[in-house]
Amino acid sequence: MDLTERSLRSEQVYDGVLLDVRRDEVRLPNGETSGREWIKHPGASAVVPIDDEGRVILLRQYRFGPGREFWEVPAGKFDSDGEEALDVAKRELAEEAGVEAAAWTRLGQTFPAIGYSDETIHLFLAEGLSRTEEHVDDDEFVEPFRMPFAEAAAMARRGEIEDAKSCVALLLAAAVVDARDLD
Amino acid sequence: MDLTERSLRSEQVYDGVLLDVRRDEVRLPNGETSGREWIKHPGASAVVPIDDEGRVILLRQYRFGPGREFWEVPAGKFDSDGEEALDVAKRELAEEAGVEAAAWTRLGQTFPAIGYSDETIHLFLAEGLSRTEEHVDDDEFVEPFRMPFAEAAAMARRGEIEDAKSCVALLLAAAVVDARDLD
Repeated sequence: MDLTERSLRSEQVYDGVLLDVRRDEVRLPNGETSGREWIKHPGASAVVPIDDEGRVILLRQYRFGPGREFWEVPAGKFDSDGEEALDVAKRELAEEAGVEAAAWTRLGQTFPAIGYSDETIHLFLAEGLSRTEEHVDDDEFVEPFRMPFAEAAAMARRGEIEDAKSCVALLLAAAVVDARDLD
Repeated sequence: MDLTERSLRSEQVYDGVLLDVRRDEVRLPNGETSGREWIKHPGASAVVPIDDEGRVILLRQYRFGPGREFWEVPAGKFDSDGEEALDVAKRELAEEAGVEAAAWTRLGQTFPAIGYSDETIHLFLAEGLSRTEEHVDDDEFVEPFRMPFAEAAAMARRGEIEDAKSCVALLLAAAVVDARDLD
């Protein structure tokens, strides 16, 4: 069955600093029409940074929507459409965690909110970490912590990493690290 | 360090059928002010339904924002604030997968888009499945499939379940099922 919904008309209903909100009238598979409201998002990258001692760098960050702090992996949005996902990952790793990485592994991608956003988050494992000159952004209130990666992966499996992108990134990284250990 | 951002002023900037978009002026931890745009969301429940043959029911669903189909677990939004997460899970399991469950296990909760939404998704494992009279919603274009749960969990670990809530739900369910097998 072809489940595709085709846009008949699209309009921007809110043009914010962060959010670009669209409303489309669509043709459903059964021929009827319906409305779709969604966020047009530039995309993002998220990084699981593991140092030579097997520790992961996680951030403690306050998020206004939910109104509380979360454990997160370093992550950030694309500045422009032409940007490469890996370049965004490198920038955010430097800005949020203050490190650069010698080895990068692609973990895949995750779509955090397919019901109302086109956001794609590209996921990476970063290893061979060293401090960069670049300091943490002044306007980012994030606190970096290092903890054993195995402990963070166990937290994710127990449902204690409640930010979806961070949970997915840690569990995909754990699958890669576990597969290596089997070799 | 107290990372809390306090709202100084809040306004609704778009009042849609699906999306309730807010803009707040906030006081940052350093005393400066900034703007926060976010979606006020009623919350949702998502279910990993595993039948007596060890198969999970997944849905194939087209999503307009990303413009493609995804593998998803049955899930849906709260209709009203007073609703219980478990009741929403039961309703969506019936409407989307056409089954009811004898045994329910809470897996935790995930926040899919903490940068711009307050949405919380409550995650459940549902077992002891039987068909319900209630038929699949006419206005939901979803195709249910049954596959071995171990296979779906392996897909999630390989990054092949790209919907974040479904990936998190499957991996948390796998942790619960794996822990039982160790007993």
